[in-house]
Amino acid sequence: MSETSKSVSNLIDQLGRLPGIGRKSAERLAYHLLRVSKAEALALAGAIREVRENVCYCSVCYNIAESNMCAICRDPSRDQTRLCVVEQPQDLMALEQAGVFRGLYHVLLGRIAPLDGIGPDHLTIDALVERVRRGNFVEIIMATNPTVEGDGSALYISNQLAEFPVEITRLARGITAGSILEHTNKEILADALSGRQKL
Amino acid sequence: MSETSKSVSNLIDQLGRLPGIGRKSAERLAYHLLRVSKAEALALAGAIREVRENVCYCSVCYNIAESNMCAICRDPSRDQTRLCVVEQPQDLMALEQAGVFRGLYHVLLGRIAPLDGIGPDHLTIDALVERVRRGNFVEIIMATNPTVEGDGSALYISNQLAEFPVEITRLARGITAGSILEHTNKEILADALSGRQKL
Repeated sequence: MSETSKSVSNLIDQLGRLPGIGRKSAERLAYHLLRVSKAEALALAGAIREVRENVCYCSVCYNIAESNMCAICRDPSRDQTRLCVVEQPQDLMALEQAGVFRGLYHVLLGRIAPLDGIGPDHLTIDALVERVRRGNFVEIIMATNPTVEGDGSALYISNQLAEFPVEITRLARGITAGSILEHTNKEILADALSGRQKL
Repeated sequence: MSETSKSVSNLIDQLGRLPGIGRKSAERLAYHLLRVSKAEALALAGAIREVRENVCYCSVCYNIAESNMCAICRDPSRDQTRLCVVEQPQDLMALEQAGVFRGLYHVLLGRIAPLDGIGPDHLTIDALVERVRRGNFVEIIMATNPTVEGDGSALYISNQLAEFPVEITRLARGITAGSILEHTNKEILADALSGRQKL
């Protein structure tokens, strides 16, 4: 590789470290960044730098924030009595984009995964328990992913919160809107049947 | 999106402008860059900045270079009598990595593509003709892509170079090493048969 630019090789290496970007994709992206206007390339570099310099975790809910407290925790118009517990900031963003929840959030920053060596102490569960102890919540909604680890985390947390006078709920499970019954699997149908609702 | 960080939204937008990176991938990459060490994220930002500040095109062959002339044009041990014409710096890099050519290169920075509004004047063909006029080349190897536009560009260039006493060749076409005859198509078999070689 001595024949090609060291800067380009370095950029290809750095791009190749991103998840889902292989060697060929990294090369393609590097040459793209060489071809576009300098302003466009530098805008990307600046956006990466800025995000790491400006963004931290909210000291209350652990959502990403640009100051000590995130915009949601600072918003007095949000319902202060309902708390939605999610695994990652992405999950919070998905819920916000859906626009169906107006309460507060708590981001665990992961899920309990013993096989990956991630225990309850690696997450923000202590902070959550403290928040529920001091807050005026009437409902805690567990919105962890519907996976073995997500369900396990929700169960662990609901045990930790058992001493408080709050209702603990989880997201409904069943058939997804627009799906075709014939193509759903056993687990989905079992969830849908056991959680059936009055018409 | 007022609920999420402006820096993060901006980074997602910038990443989403990269080729082959959709909205969901951009989000995944942005959260990855938030999660990795600050040093790793800043290394990528720095690599992008550096590449745009250090890298230019070689004034001789239009390969990417970190100075006025690229490493290949500066290397006196390369065969100065054979010139390989490629469309893009990536093609040059692929040939260099294969290590099968020790001559010089000329990068067109594209191919003639009338449907995309790219004519001969948009490429480095004038510089190529001038190079052949002044140089001591005995052979010009057309290594444009084996596509309609690549072949058209090679044909146009060979006409431009017809007045010079150089041999103009193109890369061999035929069946690819390791392929299975049964699975090749008509064009490949036609190329292989018309270009058949003495055993």
